[in-house]
Amino acid sequence: MSPKVFRTSIRVAWVDTDAVGVVHFSNYLRYFERAEEEFYRHLGFTFDDAAIQDYWFPRVEVSCQYKKPARFNDLLEVELTIDELKEKSVRYGFKIARKGSQTLIAEGHVTVVSAKRQTGKAAPLPPEFVDKLRLHCS
Amino acid sequence: MSPKVFRTSIRVAWVDTDAVGVVHFSNYLRYFERAEEEFYRHLGFTFDDAAIQDYWFPRVEVSCQYKKPARFNDLLEVELTIDELKEKSVRYGFKIARKGSQTLIAEGHVTVVSAKRQTGKAAPLPPEFVDKLRLHCS
Amino acid sequence: MSPKVFRTSIRVAWVDTDAVGVVHFSNYLRYFERAEEEFYRHLGFTFDDAAIQDYWFPRVEVSCQYKKPARFNDLLEVELTIDELKEKSVRYGFKIARKGSQTLIAEGHVTVVSAKRQTGKAAPLPPEFVDKLRLHCS
Amino acid sequence: MSPKVFRTSIRVAWVDTDAVGVVHFSNYLRYFERAEEEFYRHLGFTFDDAAIQDYWFPRVEVSCQYKKPARFNDLLEVELTIDELKEKSVRYGFKIARKGSQTLIAEGHVTVVSAKRQTGKAAPLPPEFVDKLRLHCS
Repeated sequence: MSPKVFRTSIRVAWVDTDAVGVVHFSNYLRYFERAEEEFYRHLGFTFDDAAIQDYWFPRVEVSCQYKKPARFNDLLEVELTIDELKEKSVRYGFKIARKGSQTLIAEGHVTVVSAKRQTGKAAPLPPEFVDKLRLHCS
Repeated sequence: MSPKVFRTSIRVAWVDTDAVGVVHFSNYLRYFERAEEEFYRHLGFTFDDAAIQDYWFPRVEVSCQYKKPARFNDLLEVELTIDELKEKSVRYGFKIARKGSQTLIAEGHVTVVSAKRQTGKAAPLPPEFVDKLRLHCS
Repeated sequence: MSPKVFRTSIRVAWVDTDAVGVVHFSNYLRYFERAEEEFYRHLGFTFDDAAIQDYWFPRVEVSCQYKKPARFNDLLEVELTIDELKEKSVRYGFKIARKGSQTLIAEGHVTVVSAKRQTGKAAPLPPEFVDKLRLHCS
Repeated sequence: MSPKVFRTSIRVAWVDTDAVGVVHFSNYLRYFERAEEEFYRHLGFTFDDAAIQDYWFPRVEVSCQYKKPARFNDLLEVELTIDELKEKSVRYGFKIARKGSQTLIAEGHVTVVSAKRQTGKAAPLPPEFVDKLRLHCS
């Protein structure tokens, strides 16, 4: 699978900082998720689509390594890659740097599984979802 | 209605602070809500009760005045009073001080309406809820 | 003072929602603040400027009225107006609607005071800040 | 090092949930941190001590695996263990379950380094801190 990269920008808000003046470590996972949401919009998902609304995409595993602090007002660039696409799950990789800089601030990954909303049980990723992810990879 | 007071303690977490080293102003509303949740537990609500689960209790109005900053590790005491009880709404008043201190950190109010979850339309507060609120007031 | 309006867009993130599927009421205050931050950038503030860094701009009062729920993925437009500009404080008004819609989702205000960061005491707003706010109003 | 366990309880607040009705995945890291803060209080740290205030304890790595969803009003128990204590860092392990249940909801780890607040550079953990951590382990 080609390491095709999706990029989106996030501005650090005041509320994201903590008493040492840096972005709280939990917020990087929220930045990862915001990038994922932008990625789905980029792929053309509406989120209102009935076929999608039957599903729920819980996270089963995350990791994050923190390299440098980010601060209020920083303009960050989040890079998303599809690290692994399986029948019932997708694993995203994320890298965060200040926009225009190569210096890594944080990197991590998030594994998302596909589940039926009613039962909560794992189920194959919806085909139209897989098609769009595949199209992005190729 | 007697100004009977319900009190609960909240410890300021690191994540609640911002880059100036004080609790972010939005978090006081979350402290208000946590006190409200403790109050409902104190009244004996289970939240799992079917009769309650048909309802939704959106907030229609909030206000908050900030007097003094709170900081990481402060042990706060939140005071909740029922300021007004109407057929379809209840207005809570809140005061926050450091535990054991009279110096006000913040005070405000929150107006909660009763709505049916399915329609989203305002509906009389559930009778068992009103009974418990009344009992608290008397 | 003319009711000149500054507008910015905010996309509702998944993390902003609660178990009823709507944006948590505390997050509207965070949207207000994000609009304020965008407004300062629009006015040309760098936030790194030493003259500004001596200051701290705590909120002394907020209010919010909730009209309609916002949901995940909604694209909101936040309108900011300067409602009152005093020697040591500025009062902003905010209105939030879905972009392209006139239906109000929430509206409120936030009063910000100017204080010296070292002493925490109220102080006149920095002149360069007042100049820029005035320029926006005229 | 003995796997001595520190336990603390956390009640799931409404604001911690998302539109599927479960605790947002980023909040488990905040629960980990709250347990860590309670642990420091348990060890007798005041946080106001000058020797400690020279330091900053940024996180350099976190991971979390999500097993079962937690929901509003759940009373969770967080278990903290010291997995590794090094000269300049400490690695905590965390397990979260509903209080009184053995079924794991989430587990993870957080690696905290010791740094001087002024320089931001890594430095040996303060001796009084190490002493207390050691005492807990023995």
